[in-house]
Amino acid sequence: MLIIGAGFGGLAAVRALRRAPVEVVLLDRRNFHLFQPLLYQVATGGLSPGEIAYPIRSVLRRQKNAQVLLAEASRIDLERQEVHLTQVPGEAAASALTYDFLILAPGATHSYFGHPQWAQLAPGLKDLEDALEIRSRILLAFEHAERETNLEKRSALLTFAIVGAGPTGVELAGAIADIARRVLREDFRSIDPRETVIVLLEGGDRVLPAFPPRLSAKAAAALAGMGVDVRTGARVTNITPEGVEVGGTFIAARTALWAAGVAASPLAQSLGVPLDATGRVPVKTDLSLAQHTNVFIIGDLARLDQLPGLAPVALQQGRAAAANIVRTLAGKPRRSFHYLDKGNLATIGRASAVADIRGLQLSGLLAWLVWIFVHILYLIGFRNRLLVSMEWAWDYLSPQQAARLITGRPRL
Amino acid sequence: MLIIGAGFGGLAAVRALRRAPVEVVLLDRRNFHLFQPLLYQVATGGLSPGEIAYPIRSVLRRQKNAQVLLAEASRIDLERQEVHLTQVPGEAAASALTYDFLILAPGATHSYFGHPQWAQLAPGLKDLEDALEIRSRILLAFEHAERETNLEKRSALLTFAIVGAGPTGVELAGAIADIARRVLREDFRSIDPRETVIVLLEGGDRVLPAFPPRLSAKAAAALAGMGVDVRTGARVTNITPEGVEVGGTFIAARTALWAAGVAASPLAQSLGVPLDATGRVPVKTDLSLAQHTNVFIIGDLARLDQLPGLAPVALQQGRAAAANIVRTLAGKPRRSFHYLDKGNLATIGRASAVADIRGLQLSGLLAWLVWIFVHILYLIGFRNRLLVSMEWAWDYLSPQQAARLITGRPRL
Repeated sequence: MLIIGAGFGGLAAVRALRRAPVEVVLLDRRNFHLFQPLLYQVATGGLSPGEIAYPIRSVLRRQKNAQVLLAEASRIDLERQEVHLTQVPGEAAASALTYDFLILAPGATHSYFGHPQWAQLAPGLKDLEDALEIRSRILLAFEHAERETNLEKRSALLTFAIVGAGPTGVELAGAIADIARRVLREDFRSIDPRETVIVLLEGGDRVLPAFPPRLSAKAAAALAGMGVDVRTGARVTNITPEGVEVGGTFIAARTALWAAGVAASPLAQSLGVPLDATGRVPVKTDLSLAQHTNVFIIGDLARLDQLPGLAPVALQQGRAAAANIVRTLAGKPRRSFHYLDKGNLATIGRASAVADIRGLQLSGLLAWLVWIFVHILYLIGFRNRLLVSMEWAWDYLSPQQAARLITGRPRL
Repeated sequence: MLIIGAGFGGLAAVRALRRAPVEVVLLDRRNFHLFQPLLYQVATGGLSPGEIAYPIRSVLRRQKNAQVLLAEASRIDLERQEVHLTQVPGEAAASALTYDFLILAPGATHSYFGHPQWAQLAPGLKDLEDALEIRSRILLAFEHAERETNLEKRSALLTFAIVGAGPTGVELAGAIADIARRVLREDFRSIDPRETVIVLLEGGDRVLPAFPPRLSAKAAAALAGMGVDVRTGARVTNITPEGVEVGGTFIAARTALWAAGVAASPLAQSLGVPLDATGRVPVKTDLSLAQHTNVFIIGDLARLDQLPGLAPVALQQGRAAAANIVRTLAGKPRRSFHYLDKGNLATIGRASAVADIRGLQLSGLLAWLVWIFVHILYLIGFRNRLLVSMEWAWDYLSPQQAARLITGRPRL
C-alpha cells in the first residue's frame, strides 16, 4: 500500500491505517509535514519554519506498519501499478515502487493563468521556501527604502501589491499592515514604516468570495481600518519588477505577492485520465478512480462535487479513503464520501478574523479567538502547540517579532 | 562614526556608545546578530535559526543615536576615509559612506588551506545558511541510506567525517552521535541509525588543542564513549564526493564537514596594510591601526598578542574600542586593551562538556551545566533565552527534535 504526499490528507490516511493489516509506505519529497494554514505567518515573520513543520518520521515513529520514504514520484503507471521515482544523485538508476492500493495526495501548486514569467516577480505561498522568500522580500523592501534617497523610488519600495483576496491574500495584507504599523514602527531612522501602502487586488467583486457576503463586507471594512487599499474588480494585466498593471492603471510596487490561483500537482498528468481545467482528477464518490478502483485521489488533486481545497476536506478524505481500503480488504462494500463542513475561518490581522460556522457568522475579536483555538488544536504535536501559543502570546503583548530574519544566501 | 559588522564585537561597540555624543552607523550585510557559539545546534537540528539570531534593529530600537544599515562593505579607502558599498539592484550607482571614526569587525570565514574546491564537498560552519546546509546533508544521508540497498554504499552514507577537532569539530561530532544513537533511533525501518560511524580527524596530536592536555584527554574519552572514532595526527590530503583521504588511507564517507581552518574577512585586503598569514590585521595595544589611529580593528580580524578568535575577546574589544573613541573625543589618552579571560568552554555531547575557568578544570555534567548557564546568559534577548531553555529542557526529556527540517529547494 502506497501513499504519496504527507500533507493533511496523506498523513490522515496513514494514521487511519495504523491498526489495519497492511504495510504502508508513505512517500514525500520533503521530510516534514507542513501546517500550511499558518504558512503566511512564516512569510510575515511571526513564526519560524520549525514551528509549523514537523518531521514525518517523528509523527509516525511508533506506527510500526508505516515506512516513510523521502523520494519524489515522477510518474505513475496505472496499468503496471508502479510509481516511478526521481533519481537520487549516486543512485545507479531511477527506481520504481509497485503497489496494490495507491492513495494519491500530492497537493497543489501555484497557477499564474498562463503567465509563468510572473512567478519570479510575484511569488506565491505554498511551501516553506516560498514563505522565507516572501519574508525576505518584505523585509528587504523596508531595508532598501531606508537606504533610498529618491522619494519616488522609496515610495515604490514601501508599496506592496497582493494579487488575490482569498484567505491567503487577506492574511498577507493584514500581516504586512501589522508589521508596518506596529512591529517595525521604531526600527528605522530615515523612513517611517507607517507610510507603507498595501494594495489588495481582487478580480471578483468582493474579498473572501468563499464566505457569505456579509462577512466579506466585514473583512473589507477591517482591512480598510488597518490601512489596506482594497480594490475589487481589479484584474491584473501585467507584472514587472517595478509594479503591477491593473487594466490601464500602473501601481508602482517593488514587492508583489501572488495569492490568486492554484493548480493541481502536475503528477496527475502522468495518469493518462481526463483532468478538469485546474488539473484536478475527477473521482467517484468513494474517492477512487473510475477505471482503477485500487487508486484513490484525495485533497487538492481530487475533484468531487464543489469541494474547496481546504485542510479539513483533505483530512476527512484521507480517513475516508483509508476506511474504504480496509472495507475492501474485508470484503465489505465501500462508502461514499460526505464532507462534514465544520466551518470556514479566515484571519484578517491582529485580533480580527471572520468565521462562518454552519450559518453562524462571527467577525472581529471573537472570530479571531475561535481561529486561534482551532489552529492550535490542529497543529500536530504538543510541542509545536506550546511553542506557537508562546509566540502568539508574546506577539500579542510585545511589538517585537524574532522570526524576522532575512535568510538565504545574502542578496542585497 | 561607522561600525562594520554586527557580531559580538561590533554590537558591543555600538551599545557601549549609547550615551556618547556621537551618531553611530552600524553596517551589516545581514539583518540579524547571530549567536555563533550555538550555530552547531542549528546544524544538527537542536535549534531553529530564529532561536539564535536576533534582528539588529530590534536590539538597537531604543538607541536613538544608532542607525542600522543593511549593506555590504566592498572596499575601504583609508586615505579618503570612505567605505564603499556593494551596489543594490535598482540603485543608480554604488554608494560610499564617509567616517570620522571607523570600527572594523567583519569577522572571519573558512580557510581550506589552498584547496578551495573542498568547500563544496565539506562545508564549514560560519553562518545560518552553512548550518542549514549541514543539517540537510546530515539528515539526507540517513534518508538516502534508508533507500539504499547496496550495503557498501549504505555504510558510506552512514559515515560522517569531520575535519578538525577544535570546539566546532568536537561539538559537531558529539551532536551527530547523539542524533544517530538517540534522536533517530526509532525513525527508520531499513537502517539502524546506531550503526552510524563518526570519524573525527585532527591534524595535531590531541583534540581541543586550546585546552589543557588533561581536558583534551577527558574530551577524547567522552567522544570515544559516544562511539566517535577520534584520530589525531590525521592530516587530510584529499576530499572527494565519496570520502576523505588521510595520508594513504581512504575513508568512505558521503558526508564530510569542515571545522579546521579560519581566515580573516577578505575586506581587510582593501586596507593596503600588511596582514598576517591568516589575513588578520596587526593592531596597536589600543586596537587602532598604526598609521590611521581613527580606525579600530576588533574581533576575528584583529591580531593582538596571541588572542584567540572567541566571542568574549570580540565583545571586550568592542567595548574597549568604543571607550577609546570616547576618550579621544574628550581629549583624554587612550588605554591599552587587556583581555580578561573568564574561561574556556566546549560542549561534547548531551550532558558532557569541558571547562577551563582560570585554572579550574571541569569536565562531564558539571562542565555542561556551566556551559548551559553561560550560553543562556549571553543569548541576546529574554525571549530567545526562554525559547532556547524550553528547547533544551524538552530535548533533555524527550528524544525528539522538531528543528529537524531539511529545507532549501528540494534536492533529492
